Amino acid sequence: MEILSENKAFGGTQGVYKHNSHSCRCDMTFGLFLPEEAQYGAVPVLWYLSGLTCTHENAMTKAAAQGWAAEQGIALVFPDTSPRGEGVADDDAYDLGQGAGFYVNATQEPWAKHFNMWDYITEDLPSMLQENLPLDMTRQAITGHSMGGHGALTMAMSLPGRFRSVSAFAPICNPTGSDWGRKQLSAYLGDDESTWAAHDASLLMTEKGFDGPVLIDQGTEDQFLDLLRPETLASAAALRRQEITHRMQKGYDHSYFFVSSFMEEHIAFHAEALYAD
Amino acid sequence: MEILSENKAFGGTQGVYKHNSHSCRCDMTFGLFLPEEAQYGAVPVLWYLSGLTCTHENAMTKAAAQGWAAEQGIALVFPDTSPRGEGVADDDAYDLGQGAGFYVNATQEPWAKHFNMWDYITEDLPSMLQENLPLDMTRQAITGHSMGGHGALTMAMSLPGRFRSVSAFAPICNPTGSDWGRKQLSAYLGDDESTWAAHDASLLMTEKGFDGPVLIDQGTEDQFLDLLRPETLASAAALRRQEITHRMQKGYDHSYFFVSSFMEEHIAFHAEALYAD
Repeated sequence: MEILSENKAFGGTQGVYKHNSHSCRCDMTFGLFLPEEAQYGAVPVLWYLSGLTCTHENAMTKAAAQGWAAEQGIALVFPDTSPRGEGVADDDAYDLGQGAGFYVNATQEPWAKHFNMWDYITEDLPSMLQENLPLDMTRQAITGHSMGGHGALTMAMSLPGRFRSVSAFAPICNPTGSDWGRKQLSAYLGDDESTWAAHDASLLMTEKGFDGPVLIDQGTEDQFLDLLRPETLASAAALRRQEITHRMQKGYDHSYFFVSSFMEEHIAFHAEALYAD
Repeated sequence: MEILSENKAFGGTQGVYKHNSHSCRCDMTFGLFLPEEAQYGAVPVLWYLSGLTCTHENAMTKAAAQGWAAEQGIALVFPDTSPRGEGVADDDAYDLGQGAGFYVNATQEPWAKHFNMWDYITEDLPSMLQENLPLDMTRQAITGHSMGGHGALTMAMSLPGRFRSVSAFAPICNPTGSDWGRKQLSAYLGDDESTWAAHDASLLMTEKGFDGPVLIDQGTEDQFLDLLRPETLASAAALRRQEITHRMQKGYDHSYFFVSSFMEEHIAFHAEALYAD
């Protein structure tokens, strides 16, 4: 694990690190905020998965999360959204390839070699963190924005017991029924749509649900509402009687101004779950 | 005044606007956060002047100021740091020309035509804001970072009665004695150093001081401490018996991680002055 930068922030440390990823077969960069409490022992962890076009850096600098995490004594992990670098496949479109990993393990060419973001986020990066850093991996929660909200919800439902709580800002809720999803799932997983279902939060909500609290915020003026399809997730959760708070926030759009406006409440929500018992 | 973007944020609006500047003889872009209270009447104003290389955007997205301003019902103005665009002079160095206006009125070529940031911030932009927006210009305060801290301090001391309070994050404190200053003051104002004194916070502190509270934060690990020279301002303020809180914050550097870590306290400090009487 190589240190790219470390800045003191809110009494703790905002670091950026590089490590070799087994799953993605390349170097990966991630951000990690450690609160002051990490000097004295292992602290709980909140994962923040980012959206299309983002690197590890966007949320780290624009989501205004560190102050609230410091107040709660929680670490924040900001992974990248795809493999990158020389020899890693890419596409001219902003919503495919680098910056658009969609949190799946690709099986199709030219993506299969490097685009294994599911394994990267659920196996590779957590083992590396556990070995090297004062994190209490029995206390994990996950959140994300847009494509990262999709990743957070699908991972939380697919890995029972891993995360105590899940939240999302403007998540892609139903990728199998949206242009933010059909294109990418087809490219990464192939045309057999039965393989796509494991990566659709609305379908997973119908099939499995989540054993813990869920918080979703969505802006009523989000310019991408038609692509996000929050209605499918809201409906599936209600049908399942899932414990969930699903809010449509009047006037907010898809930007980090929306994300940062509700960050305090999301971190307080996760803190309650992370510090329970 | 042309709207470039408006995003709902913390119950209010984060806008970006363009207008033609009389002083700079070009279009200028600025950010403005209006809290929800501005719908019902004029609100107090906190100016945030940015540092070298910044545009109006950096602090608007990275300083985490809007949430605290919303809580206090205060508007935030984020001006650009120089004139820009076709026909505006520039220099290859990051610390001269576009992005490095130093908050002075240039008298030397090739800068004199456009580089009049002192007049832009103290006359041009405030009149435009007063005419068009629900701002209470009898309740103004000013802050800034690095070169912007220099601007905030020099303007506050040079315009008695304009600002009720002044604060700064890692300000350039003594530009007439530093490579962050001598080069630019010479380029913009010429070699007669007597014209530089009006733009040196430490000299102004000795000569005039500020009729109100002053708050300065500085990181002990700031990589630019030798250029900022906080010791000259601290000494001048102490000699004058100026009302001031000057803090050296252990472990912090020059970045927005430092700025955002102390933003809550700076905005609370200004709110107290803005709402007095």
